[in-house]
Amino acid sequence: MEKENKMEKIVSLCKRRGFVFQGSEIYGGLAGIFDYGPYGVELRHNIKQYFWQKFISEREDVYGMGAAILMPEKVWEASGHTQLFTDPLVECKICHERVRADQAEVISDHEKTHKNEKEKVGWTEPSTFNLLVGSKLGASEKTATQVYLRGEITQGVHVNFKNILDSMHPKLPFGLGQIGKAFRNEITPRDFLFRQREFEQMELQYYIKPNDEEGDKQYEYWKQFAFDWYLGLGFKKENLRWRQHAKDELAHYAKDAWDIEYNTPFAGWKEAWGVHHRKDWDLRRHSEYSKTDLSYYDEETKERFIPWDIECSGGVDRAFLFVLLEAYTEDELGGETRTYLKLSPKLAPVKVAVFPLLKNKPQLVEKAREIYKTLKKEFGAVEFDDNGNIGKRYRRQDEIGTPFCVTIDFDTLEKNEGVTVRDRDTGKQERISENNLVSYIKEKMV
Amino acid sequence: MEKENKMEKIVSLCKRRGFVFQGSEIYGGLAGIFDYGPYGVELRHNIKQYFWQKFISEREDVYGMGAAILMPEKVWEASGHTQLFTDPLVECKICHERVRADQAEVISDHEKTHKNEKEKVGWTEPSTFNLLVGSKLGASEKTATQVYLRGEITQGVHVNFKNILDSMHPKLPFGLGQIGKAFRNEITPRDFLFRQREFEQMELQYYIKPNDEEGDKQYEYWKQFAFDWYLGLGFKKENLRWRQHAKDELAHYAKDAWDIEYNTPFAGWKEAWGVHHRKDWDLRRHSEYSKTDLSYYDEETKERFIPWDIECSGGVDRAFLFVLLEAYTEDELGGETRTYLKLSPKLAPVKVAVFPLLKNKPQLVEKAREIYKTLKKEFGAVEFDDNGNIGKRYRRQDEIGTPFCVTIDFDTLEKNEGVTVRDRDTGKQERISENNLVSYIKEKMV
Repeated sequence: MEKENKMEKIVSLCKRRGFVFQGSEIYGGLAGIFDYGPYGVELRHNIKQYFWQKFISEREDVYGMGAAILMPEKVWEASGHTQLFTDPLVECKICHERVRADQAEVISDHEKTHKNEKEKVGWTEPSTFNLLVGSKLGASEKTATQVYLRGEITQGVHVNFKNILDSMHPKLPFGLGQIGKAFRNEITPRDFLFRQREFEQMELQYYIKPNDEEGDKQYEYWKQFAFDWYLGLGFKKENLRWRQHAKDELAHYAKDAWDIEYNTPFAGWKEAWGVHHRKDWDLRRHSEYSKTDLSYYDEETKERFIPWDIECSGGVDRAFLFVLLEAYTEDELGGETRTYLKLSPKLAPVKVAVFPLLKNKPQLVEKAREIYKTLKKEFGAVEFDDNGNIGKRYRRQDEIGTPFCVTIDFDTLEKNEGVTVRDRDTGKQERISENNLVSYIKEKMV
Repeated sequence: MEKENKMEKIVSLCKRRGFVFQGSEIYGGLAGIFDYGPYGVELRHNIKQYFWQKFISEREDVYGMGAAILMPEKVWEASGHTQLFTDPLVECKICHERVRADQAEVISDHEKTHKNEKEKVGWTEPSTFNLLVGSKLGASEKTATQVYLRGEITQGVHVNFKNILDSMHPKLPFGLGQIGKAFRNEITPRDFLFRQREFEQMELQYYIKPNDEEGDKQYEYWKQFAFDWYLGLGFKKENLRWRQHAKDELAHYAKDAWDIEYNTPFAGWKEAWGVHHRKDWDLRRHSEYSKTDLSYYDEETKERFIPWDIECSGGVDRAFLFVLLEAYTEDELGGETRTYLKLSPKLAPVKVAVFPLLKNKPQLVEKAREIYKTLKKEFGAVEFDDNGNIGKRYRRQDEIGTPFCVTIDFDTLEKNEGVTVRDRDTGKQERISENNLVSYIKEKMV
């Protein structure tokens, strides 16, 4: 399978099978904005759920929270976004379209549209373009407040640091995690879900004592934790790697920054997840700009200081895309080519599908309904399907990544021989007694 | 407890105990925008989860989805929002502040601020003010696209109607449900979480055949379903009621509209949930404005038509506020006044808290840790607390609505007499053997 091809196939599968649609598509679509369909919203939910479970619920040292999308201008001055959250932009001298100056492919694609005006092609000098998406709130121009749709969810955590100290009385080290949407006015949104204007992030800000020894220890710990978590989404180890930010790309306040990268078929290694040592930059800046004391008092050492922050951060939509790229498989089964999504069972939008062999045999349907109800109670995301021949039904479930298909046939009814359970990846069927069905699937689900 | 008082107490509890903070509070806060803290985000999640379970997951005729927040202007022209989504607004002739003309209390509150300028007080004639929150996307003024942060999540479903038909091939009747944020430039946001500028909605659009008999039947069904669901959030039946929209407040396209109202302590009966019979308004308008065929082909009758739509819709934040108002209780226990949240266990942010009687007895702590781990594996949201005397720990859990507190004392260790389980509502303790602990709590949790 060609690499470029794979991305196209996934975009097509996503639309055809109800995972992802272009945002407001019937109105021509909005560039860089997407709507999630029935299977997409479940896969997304499962990724977020897995983050919340591992980074928040299972830990005693991390609290969850959920800050608002709209935040005042001052927040973004403090964080440096109004000044520094920019991309270089050039304008085509022929048609005045503006594109990213640092994306050679976009530049060259655009120049091709003017191939008949070759002698005239040219670009303006690069200028900076701020990515924050703004709006105004208030009942009149005069009294309106300039707000921004947050460009990252990070700041919503930091501005609540004092509220958390006052309400939860946590002791260092402790973390604050959240999941939520962020917005960037990308000049050239592209590569499907990879670079969007509206997207969702999942993040942990982990506050620690401000010293190098503790910092190094915690940084290593969270790098390992994040890598293990990302692997748990179902990636092959060789398709993930660490990349350290070079000195010249490191934010001036950052002590260290590493990204987990995924080997994409459309553009090679691309950022999947960041673990960044932000030191006291955010809390210190918000202290200054809000004139609020954001220090922490250590009861043991009787010291007061601004904690350092280790950030773990990644995109939900990007994880979603990478999971699909990794899971998308074509093979041959019974002499036919088939497509399936080799999703980790915990991420699969449907865990089990239940089929009566034939639709027009009431006894088969009744039995299948009974088993469907039992499995739905146990596994939640279970589908019943009696539509079309059995081969087609298997193919439909393969394409959405359902790990198990349970078929009720005449041997189930007449010989009391149990049901068949088909494994998505091997295509092989096993006969399992009704009594053992739940535990059989449960065991394989891990 | 005075009615006005109750709202103030809840606002205070929400801040003190990590449920809700003013948005970007350290920067002076943004009116009508709130951030959710650790317990708030869990309670919110549990409300949303309960919606998703009952309206979507458990049903075979409803699909979930998740559309984007940013949508193009044309969507809101089609839906009528650019023209009709307005509030009447008047401007104070002294200070030019603008407020809602239809809120007598706001008007009178404002006039009080000018009590020394009495003869001058006056208001302009009411004008209409559009509530849509707008923004622009694009790299230059010339090419920028006017977009709106959706004013309701409804339209994100309707514009995907064709995508769902093409990908899921559903048969009527079927529904599409989603949960997500919406934004309104409220002139006078007020009453804490009741009228916000950024809020979350949960909705079902249920598409049916376009005839009166089917319409009436489905409408009655969903009214009952929605009422039962809302009751399930833990309300007393007498605090909820139905109110039918009067002829003059009914949208011109609507066939019928009823709201479930909650008897609030701050302003009497207020809208909690709507069940609205929207007929074919939305799909017909989007067909016209997008020039896309949004009809449905009925294979049985060989007819093509635009379905009707029954909408079930409510606010997450509003449900959150009403749940707190309903749950907030003060009583006397052991001669002391106490405050507790009588939350339905399925909504409680923490299900069980585990305490060693004393902090400085390693054996107690070790045993408590062991039981904590078992319970956490079973119930997820479980807290361990060894901080302060046992009475204080009970009070802390009461205030966040934890249904059960498990204490490990010397009788647990020395006499092998099990643990004590304290019931939040009665304050009574029962001694339960370790082996029966999980099943005891499970049984009471329903």
